[in-house]
Amino acid sequence: MRKRKSLTEFKKGVLAGDRVVLSQAITLVESNLETDSKLAGDLVQELLPYAGNSIRVGITGVPGVGKSTFIESFGKMLVDKGKKVAVLAVDPSSQKTKGSILGDKTRMEKLASDKRAFIRPSPSGSTLGGVSSKTREAMLICEAAGFDVILVETVGVGQSEIAVKGMVDFFLLLMLSGAGDELQGIKKGIMEMADGMLINKADGDNLQPAKKAKATYQNALHLFPLGENNWSPKVLIGSSISGMGLPECWQMIEDFQSKMLGNGFWEKNRAEQRLKWLDDSIQALLGRAFYMHPAIQKKLNEGKKQVLEGDLNPMNLARELTSHFLKK
Amino acid sequence: MRKRKSLTEFKKGVLAGDRVVLSQAITLVESNLETDSKLAGDLVQELLPYAGNSIRVGITGVPGVGKSTFIESFGKMLVDKGKKVAVLAVDPSSQKTKGSILGDKTRMEKLASDKRAFIRPSPSGSTLGGVSSKTREAMLICEAAGFDVILVETVGVGQSEIAVKGMVDFFLLLMLSGAGDELQGIKKGIMEMADGMLINKADGDNLQPAKKAKATYQNALHLFPLGENNWSPKVLIGSSISGMGLPECWQMIEDFQSKMLGNGFWEKNRAEQRLKWLDDSIQALLGRAFYMHPAIQKKLNEGKKQVLEGDLNPMNLARELTSHFLKK
Repeated sequence: MRKRKSLTEFKKGVLAGDRVVLSQAITLVESNLETDSKLAGDLVQELLPYAGNSIRVGITGVPGVGKSTFIESFGKMLVDKGKKVAVLAVDPSSQKTKGSILGDKTRMEKLASDKRAFIRPSPSGSTLGGVSSKTREAMLICEAAGFDVILVETVGVGQSEIAVKGMVDFFLLLMLSGAGDELQGIKKGIMEMADGMLINKADGDNLQPAKKAKATYQNALHLFPLGENNWSPKVLIGSSISGMGLPECWQMIEDFQSKMLGNGFWEKNRAEQRLKWLDDSIQALLGRAFYMHPAIQKKLNEGKKQVLEGDLNPMNLARELTSHFLKK
Repeated sequence: MRKRKSLTEFKKGVLAGDRVVLSQAITLVESNLETDSKLAGDLVQELLPYAGNSIRVGITGVPGVGKSTFIESFGKMLVDKGKKVAVLAVDPSSQKTKGSILGDKTRMEKLASDKRAFIRPSPSGSTLGGVSSKTREAMLICEAAGFDVILVETVGVGQSEIAVKGMVDFFLLLMLSGAGDELQGIKKGIMEMADGMLINKADGDNLQPAKKAKATYQNALHLFPLGENNWSPKVLIGSSISGMGLPECWQMIEDFQSKMLGNGFWEKNRAEQRLKWLDDSIQALLGRAFYMHPAIQKKLNEGKKQVLEGDLNPMNLARELTSHFLKK
């Protein structure tokens, strides 16, 4: 077994931007071992003063929308602009769907081989609450390592979007033209969460339909309520092949940042996200202790059947089990 | 002090449709006393075999959209059709906004005086989790008392909608024509939750704008993804003064029910709602025990400041506090 690095070694390596140490630090926060989580927490705590100086962008869309190719082209454009770009993934469904979200690094060859970029595939085998908390910590570590754009990829299946929306500054939804069938994979509610949409694959025969879809969505979005940040979501078209629309997409994100910094919502949003992260973590840890408790599990499985059948008042079962758990 | 009824007395009275006992039973489930909650839970448990036979309709919209007047006219139409109608309210914001959601019964005079209707104002002074659980239990009690339509009113402020969406069969959003400023009160995400929309106050000079708004929204909604129940949300116009649109609104709800019964989603949705209710209740009870703990409160308040400032890793604070709490 390889000797584990000390807190100081981790901290020094990350702050120096050492890729190997950065990778090991993220592996550390992703670990499910109790001993690792203590060190991981301490490391993140030590790195906090150096974190926060990035634009955090969540990117989602249904499978097939071209997320990986988009991120590769978009990330390449950003590093060519002198940005340091980290790509992380939140993928709660990887177990079930065997989706290839960032799973195949070779799909991002150009970006992965660039020294100014860092690509981290999705942590697997964890619950969403865990993944989301781990992704937040990984994000802070990347920031401390000097990355100034963090792209967080997720799939358009609902739960992961809500988690990612709660940890990024800007939420981008990739779509395809020919609104209809392609959208069925996106869950209700995701579209209203987007700060910006980009109709992807707007090249060749797709260009005209994409332009039309852009106008249609832009009109539709005007009908929907603004968020409290008063930002009106934009719709763009783009192509990862021709590169068309990518500079405009970055411009949109910078405009957003500049507006939010101006109206105070940038820091307000981040402070709220930190509090939400705290509450979510507390609830997740309490829930984990409860649901992992063997005696509770047994009683819960029996009771759940009756609840599903409609034979047992859920509130009664909840009261009984929680008071049993808390007395232990 | 009035002698409290026994479980048997409550059960008999509710099943006989006795209004006084019904009111007392709901007061019982709304009580925050530990002793009451045991009896309340037992009562709901006893009544479960008689519950479930209603259409549960959530109704929301921003203040000023005319919810109370709509519910009065809509409810009156339903009782005239021979339905027994109960109206409940979920209003987490009553403390803050002093909104008058069902607070003033006299605003529903006609319906309130009808023997086939039952109107219950919002329980006050409770947290949302509590209110939502209590509203669910109140709903089951009303069903056991023979009501076959339950209208659950809520305000368009976000959190309460999500709670109500999780306890009803059909979610109706009331809107005003002249999309724009009126919508600012509605939170993002609410529109995508609606199974149907009704542009209210479509009378007099408002009729033409309402018709136009209906077409615009219907077009916009076509762009948005369907839910897993495969229902395509409808947009109607209506007037509580002329009664126009109210029969169509009921027809829409009946069409929805018939389609959902056909595709199996009616019972599937209710079973999922019961499981969600169980999980929500467990999380709420665990959370309450945690957040009400004096030693935790003190540590949490100190830590929260540091988290808000960005000086403390939220995950560290969560780990420390939950392990402290669970060791006690």
